[in-house]
Amino acid sequence: MSTIFSTAANLHPMFSLVTKSLSTRNIFSHTYPEKSYRTLHQIGSLSIPSWSLKSRSRHCVKSLLSDVHGQDKFSSVGARSTGPIAPNHLIEVVKTAAQTGAQVVMDAVNKPRNITYKGLTDLVTETDKMSEAAILEVVKKNFDDHLILGEEGGIIGDAASDYLWCIDPLDGTTNFTHGYPSFAVSVGVLYRGNPAAAAVVEFVGGPFCWNTRTFSATAGGGAFCNGQRIQVSATNQVERSLLVTGFGYDHDDAWATNIELFKEFTDISRGVRRLGAAAVDMCHVALGIVEAYWEYRLKPWDMAAGVLIVEEAGGAVSRMDGGEFCVFDRSVLVSNGALHAKLLERIGPATEKLKSKGIDFALWYKPKDYRADV
Amino acid sequence: MSTIFSTAANLHPMFSLVTKSLSTRNIFSHTYPEKSYRTLHQIGSLSIPSWSLKSRSRHCVKSLLSDVHGQDKFSSVGARSTGPIAPNHLIEVVKTAAQTGAQVVMDAVNKPRNITYKGLTDLVTETDKMSEAAILEVVKKNFDDHLILGEEGGIIGDAASDYLWCIDPLDGTTNFTHGYPSFAVSVGVLYRGNPAAAAVVEFVGGPFCWNTRTFSATAGGGAFCNGQRIQVSATNQVERSLLVTGFGYDHDDAWATNIELFKEFTDISRGVRRLGAAAVDMCHVALGIVEAYWEYRLKPWDMAAGVLIVEEAGGAVSRMDGGEFCVFDRSVLVSNGALHAKLLERIGPATEKLKSKGIDFALWYKPKDYRADV
Repeated sequence: MSTIFSTAANLHPMFSLVTKSLSTRNIFSHTYPEKSYRTLHQIGSLSIPSWSLKSRSRHCVKSLLSDVHGQDKFSSVGARSTGPIAPNHLIEVVKTAAQTGAQVVMDAVNKPRNITYKGLTDLVTETDKMSEAAILEVVKKNFDDHLILGEEGGIIGDAASDYLWCIDPLDGTTNFTHGYPSFAVSVGVLYRGNPAAAAVVEFVGGPFCWNTRTFSATAGGGAFCNGQRIQVSATNQVERSLLVTGFGYDHDDAWATNIELFKEFTDISRGVRRLGAAAVDMCHVALGIVEAYWEYRLKPWDMAAGVLIVEEAGGAVSRMDGGEFCVFDRSVLVSNGALHAKLLERIGPATEKLKSKGIDFALWYKPKDYRADV
Repeated sequence: MSTIFSTAANLHPMFSLVTKSLSTRNIFSHTYPEKSYRTLHQIGSLSIPSWSLKSRSRHCVKSLLSDVHGQDKFSSVGARSTGPIAPNHLIEVVKTAAQTGAQVVMDAVNKPRNITYKGLTDLVTETDKMSEAAILEVVKKNFDDHLILGEEGGIIGDAASDYLWCIDPLDGTTNFTHGYPSFAVSVGVLYRGNPAAAAVVEFVGGPFCWNTRTFSATAGGGAFCNGQRIQVSATNQVERSLLVTGFGYDHDDAWATNIELFKEFTDISRGVRRLGAAAVDMCHVALGIVEAYWEYRLKPWDMAAGVLIVEEAGGAVSRMDGGEFCVFDRSVLVSNGALHAKLLERIGPATEKLKSKGIDFALWYKPKDYRADV
């Protein structure tokens, strides 16, 4: 990730003159000031492409400045702490919650598949809801005053809580209905808006050899798979990278743009995989078996756990325009860090083009009144 | 598969007037008479798109005729028999060969990965060759007079043999180098040019949970996974299908065409996966977890086993222009059968367009002098 700031610093040492007020981002209104953001990138009458740096909306000046001095090389998506709850305690509950949901999913996987689509749809809906209910039970039993955002049940709990649980009880539903690996249960908990602890239970193998592996991370505590420390790959050349992306259900301009990006990166890398479950793809970056993953239009429950696991495995996280990411954003790029700036050279301009066409990239799915230091 | 011929028959009952001589295909010259082939499709002054039927180059008249009478609903890629070698004997050797290669690959997977690419490249090359050598040893020990076509070693043995072994000691090399599932060992044996027995050992799971499953089939004997009978899905609507495709290393016109097909089918289906190993993708069709797979420019060692496994699981196999497939062809579409004609409505015209531009679709990689009844 230091690469990103080094690039920005090399391009434009005058960033030290930028004042903090230029980069203020108002998350509470569900929008952020594009004008201020762009001003930052155009300061000093140089045209600095926004994808050549990773702007830190609160602290971009500090981060860029500190990079010049080699003190603080990247902005973090993770929370500064797990708050008043000890990391060990929080992660144990997060893992228990995800694994409890995963048991519900595994029970459904092992049942004979219904050959009618109506049945399959019912099964999926039932499994989604049963998994989420099982997860909620674990969370509520341990922390009855926390706020919870579930894919199926929406928002419940007290908005005054500093903790927001983002739960995807079955990420990769299409794959699940077909018995096609991979899919996952994803549980991430935010502390004041930033991921503090995360667990993803990935289903692998498929018929005749279903299995799972569990990824976990706490802010500042590293990333693990089945209890063993993991780290991203060291690959720093696009032409030697294996990449992965996803395409959402809404076939809009962002979808078409990503088809073009898929083509471009298929052309210049070792390949772009398309597996179909965001949390899984991000964990694969953390595991070091692919170098990067990006997608437009994900929801907090798709990303909250995965981005922390990548970051704690030594990777980088940003929006697809290169800007600082938060889990309420509408695009994400996660990478091994070494490749982040190089990938943004293509992904950034494509995303800027979408923004210039007026495509909505404002924050979304942020619970009203939830306190987020983002 | 009956759908395909039903479509053709419905469109044009006068196909019963076509004479066999119109459809002759000369495989021995490594080309086939496009003019004759096209004439078939244009007979009766009706313009029948070639992708609306599955032409059987040797027997298309018979097949179409018989379809009208409901006797023989599809052309087969499988051999009519396993020849003088009993099916049980042949498949045991094929499975042993594939599993012997797979053991070599598994040993390499379990070793710590070298973080330099030079090392990884060496490892891959070494593993490829070691796997192929192990497979060859099994084949030669059992059938020292057979012809063998290996991805690494090329052609060896007696061209006068009726048996041709098509061996991919490591299908999905890119995935293997990254530790990304899936990849496979694929062994298919042809009898007089058509697949008679096949085994694919698929590696699934990835780091922390590597596992394998073994697919197998004999011509007329059904398809199996880990010894249990498997069958394709019954899905007959494109909008409810999960599909998978691949993109080769040569980024030519066919590659660009398939990017377009990827976009089109991503738009209208439940999704198009891109996993990166042809033999694996075909076995997934046979397993019923995806509905279809297609790719241009595959080699006999990529396809010989997979197409038989799909067919024996109840699926359909053709070229991407809808024509009869043989393992020396440059394109393949495998499906659950029920969707074959619907997929060809888009894949067929795209492929015809390539042909009309003069893109080479002549047969390739057929060992000189090898006797093939195709």
